[in-house]
Amino acid sequence: MIPHLKISTFAQQILSVKYQVLENINSPKDLKKLGVSELDQLAQELRFFVQEITKTKAGHIKSSLGVVELSIALHFVFDTPDDILVWDVGHQAYIHKILTERKNLFHSNRKFGGLSGFTNRKESVYDPFGAGHSSTSISAVSGFAEGAKLKGINRNHIAVIGDGALTGGESFEALNYIGERNLNCLIIINDNDSSIDPNVGALSQNQKYADFFTSLNLDFIGDVDGHDTAKLISTLGSLKNEKGAKVIRVITEKGRGWIDQIQTSSNPKQEFSFQEIFASKMEELALKNEKLVAISPAMLAGAGLSDFKEKFPNRTFDVGIAEQHAVTMSAALAADGFIPVCHLYSTFAQRAFDQIIHDVALQGLAVVFCLDRASLVGEDGATHHGNFDPGFLNTIPNIIITAPMDGKSLSCLLEESLKSDKAFVIRYPKGGNFSKDQKEIGLGFGKLRKLKKGKTKAFISYGAIGLEVQKALKDLKYSHYDLVYLKPIDEDAIATIFSEYDEVISIEENSPAGGLGEKLASLKAKWNSPIRLKCHSLPDQFIEHGSNNQLLELVALDEKSIKGF
Amino acid sequence: MIPHLKISTFAQQILSVKYQVLENINSPKDLKKLGVSELDQLAQELRFFVQEITKTKAGHIKSSLGVVELSIALHFVFDTPDDILVWDVGHQAYIHKILTERKNLFHSNRKFGGLSGFTNRKESVYDPFGAGHSSTSISAVSGFAEGAKLKGINRNHIAVIGDGALTGGESFEALNYIGERNLNCLIIINDNDSSIDPNVGALSQNQKYADFFTSLNLDFIGDVDGHDTAKLISTLGSLKNEKGAKVIRVITEKGRGWIDQIQTSSNPKQEFSFQEIFASKMEELALKNEKLVAISPAMLAGAGLSDFKEKFPNRTFDVGIAEQHAVTMSAALAADGFIPVCHLYSTFAQRAFDQIIHDVALQGLAVVFCLDRASLVGEDGATHHGNFDPGFLNTIPNIIITAPMDGKSLSCLLEESLKSDKAFVIRYPKGGNFSKDQKEIGLGFGKLRKLKKGKTKAFISYGAIGLEVQKALKDLKYSHYDLVYLKPIDEDAIATIFSEYDEVISIEENSPAGGLGEKLASLKAKWNSPIRLKCHSLPDQFIEHGSNNQLLELVALDEKSIKGF
Repeated sequence: MIPHLKISTFAQQILSVKYQVLENINSPKDLKKLGVSELDQLAQELRFFVQEITKTKAGHIKSSLGVVELSIALHFVFDTPDDILVWDVGHQAYIHKILTERKNLFHSNRKFGGLSGFTNRKESVYDPFGAGHSSTSISAVSGFAEGAKLKGINRNHIAVIGDGALTGGESFEALNYIGERNLNCLIIINDNDSSIDPNVGALSQNQKYADFFTSLNLDFIGDVDGHDTAKLISTLGSLKNEKGAKVIRVITEKGRGWIDQIQTSSNPKQEFSFQEIFASKMEELALKNEKLVAISPAMLAGAGLSDFKEKFPNRTFDVGIAEQHAVTMSAALAADGFIPVCHLYSTFAQRAFDQIIHDVALQGLAVVFCLDRASLVGEDGATHHGNFDPGFLNTIPNIIITAPMDGKSLSCLLEESLKSDKAFVIRYPKGGNFSKDQKEIGLGFGKLRKLKKGKTKAFISYGAIGLEVQKALKDLKYSHYDLVYLKPIDEDAIATIFSEYDEVISIEENSPAGGLGEKLASLKAKWNSPIRLKCHSLPDQFIEHGSNNQLLELVALDEKSIKGF
Repeated sequence: MIPHLKISTFAQQILSVKYQVLENINSPKDLKKLGVSELDQLAQELRFFVQEITKTKAGHIKSSLGVVELSIALHFVFDTPDDILVWDVGHQAYIHKILTERKNLFHSNRKFGGLSGFTNRKESVYDPFGAGHSSTSISAVSGFAEGAKLKGINRNHIAVIGDGALTGGESFEALNYIGERNLNCLIIINDNDSSIDPNVGALSQNQKYADFFTSLNLDFIGDVDGHDTAKLISTLGSLKNEKGAKVIRVITEKGRGWIDQIQTSSNPKQEFSFQEIFASKMEELALKNEKLVAISPAMLAGAGLSDFKEKFPNRTFDVGIAEQHAVTMSAALAADGFIPVCHLYSTFAQRAFDQIIHDVALQGLAVVFCLDRASLVGEDGATHHGNFDPGFLNTIPNIIITAPMDGKSLSCLLEESLKSDKAFVIRYPKGGNFSKDQKEIGLGFGKLRKLKKGKTKAFISYGAIGLEVQKALKDLKYSHYDLVYLKPIDEDAIATIFSEYDEVISIEENSPAGGLGEKLASLKAKWNSPIRLKCHSLPDQFIEHGSNNQLLELVALDEKSIKGF
């Protein structure tokens, strides 16, 4: 084991390392000249390099630190990019990126205009299939393996997937397919015994991987120490060009070589994020209402619900990376008389769209959906922006769709949601700086909220982007309304607004189709209203990564742009 | 084995059966008084009864015929509705419905205003969780089992799921969860070795069910003859109130006791459905372009692609009930240089929404999606109407969304789609009566099509509902345009139309949010156009079942209603 180093030695360690091996490594072919001891030295250097360069938070680097030797061994043994190597949830692929012609760009990782934090087809031929969401890699290699058969070519197809991502249903769909077809695929289970929160699921708990894989007609080779470069190379080498569907499990330590950076002690907090307010309100509501239960697909910590789980262990369900199951199970809990609060990242709610329609809304079941990481998510970029949920949810009948502009509104809506007799969605972004003051504000059910009364122009914003609008309008005499409810939309109030102003400007931080702007335009058409209506939303494009401020500027939804509307 | 009877004896058989046992059975408690021989007699009677009453097509009744004895045994042993019994894909539940207080309503099955063809919470307390889509039942019982723990009550939780539905990823997500939590659930695998098309997947092929389930910490009890009522009763009885997660596999014969109804021989066909035209064009294109491959999640026959598979076996991939995998694998095939045509029922495309975004559109991969059973689907009803896809797809950037009004347009769009450098969606409903005449019509890329030139009012329709509009406008002097492309929408042509008429009327057979009407309203607002715009779509409600004509009348999109617009 490499000891976890303390910050006191961090600078010293970095400085003492000259990257003697890494200096000469730019592409996989450079690796193939090295001996095992040099490869081990390279592994050490890579661990420092990736931490020195990225200085990023643990959640985004620890999975890559676990697969340093594996990344080296894969590129040593296989002939990428001709051999197809697909990384599940591409953020375990930092080392892969450094080894495949991106070392000198790696300083730009996750920065605006720079490398993506995930694998990306547009970035490199060494990324034959990108992934930000989990559990797609096995499907992907199956497609390439079928392609190779049709082309009559001989190549290797390798998927590297964490034991956490294996719990996602699509992984099983693909394993079941590959096993039947006995496709030329090597599935590497990177078992670091965690997804983002600690792993759940019987397969991980039970450790009967051989039975599991062989039941699916997959040749389970066994376990390999993921930090033993020589052993990895010999095992992978023996499997190269072996026909058929094979699985190995590589045992790794997540965050191996991670250098602890000591946190500066913080003063008592005055400001709280949406997540903290959500968590605090959940605790308050759970104390008052024993029917309330919380469901999360592997994102309890991200949700802010770690303490909630401590306090209400029997009423907190972490189902693993399994959004479909999370939603259907929530529906069943609602059918059984509970009030399930199903917390999903907006982008992952896409995985459970059918279940939201078929199991929840169609059955009229009162599941509360807290869609976190809604709208732009900054550095995670295009795979993770939560820009589609208002549009896709708005197509569904029998559902309530809301977004709080601020912390108090979130508290208020969460309390309101518990009274709902149908599905109730609350969408909010990461972060925010709100006081924890729980003094209630008046948010009537289905009502928009007047924030500022002015004249000639009325701004109607939806969700937290309203805070930008507030800043922009500070010195301007225009009105500002917070929509709160996208569905049902407050037609009466909107009719009044249409009659009182020369111009209405809508602002939403999501894809235009099915959103606020189109809804207002439809009302204008329905009422044959002469109101001048200008609609601003995220563009109908995939949006890259960068800080949220950079991205808001890019899409012209920042304070300065709004001032000019 | 009960012999398959010929039609010649059908009437005679039906008449000779007096339903002596069934006559006195209205609810499960009536069953509990009977002995095994009477239960066997009841099974016979039920097989005739269900066929006599429904006279429905095989696809919708054969799965229920396979579970007659199982349905009887379940209700004999367990105490429904207190015990929770969930049927996966509710159309195997006809016998269950008859036994649970719906015998006298069963004549209305799948008819407008009558019983649903699937289980339905609103219909009966014996349907604690409804299902039209597959692979949700195990998740559902897990929710009820967690609920029972929280309530501190003792009850049984039973899911009955076909071996076909077991391939859907959500089933695995739920099994993995139940196994870890060791929930009080009995999972009954109804193994009739088929989904809708013959089954695929390594698990089914390999038959190592014991290894599979035990690897997930589920107690696999073994196989039971699904037509041996006494054995079923003793096995289920022994498991009643047994704690923990248990699985049994019941071997059944799908369609057991099905009475063949001889088809009247048909004359050579003059008219062809969308499905036949799709199939014919696919063959033509596959001959010309060897890159074309077809992917279907267990719906090859429904797609019309059975012959295609015969002719191009290596280029046809039936991946089983696994929509997520189907889409990601299609994306990989596109990344590998192929032209994948991924055929999905519109309603099942909801299952792969995230993959369409994350694996296809975001990566700019040119997958062709043929979304069949778009818009209203008649008797299958609310779980299966394809009314959401325009809305949810329209939120996605970098995708082309089209709908042919008729067979020729479908041919044309399919040909066009092969040239696309990005995802290309073609949505069309079941049925249609078109000539197979392949004379091309002019559908320019991204262009709407003028069907009829008139004055004062212009109708713009999207998709096959345009045929209703054509009929409605036959004797009226209004213009009619076929949109063809929802995305990119033909802004130039629409600007011209807005300038030429007093009124524009949009007609689409899908949910309003994100559809044609909202798009036109947005353009009207953007251009500050004074045009009078009236938008007609399916209502923002779940729509029941019935014939498509009944439903079009219900939602006021039938010929007569359109005449009045």
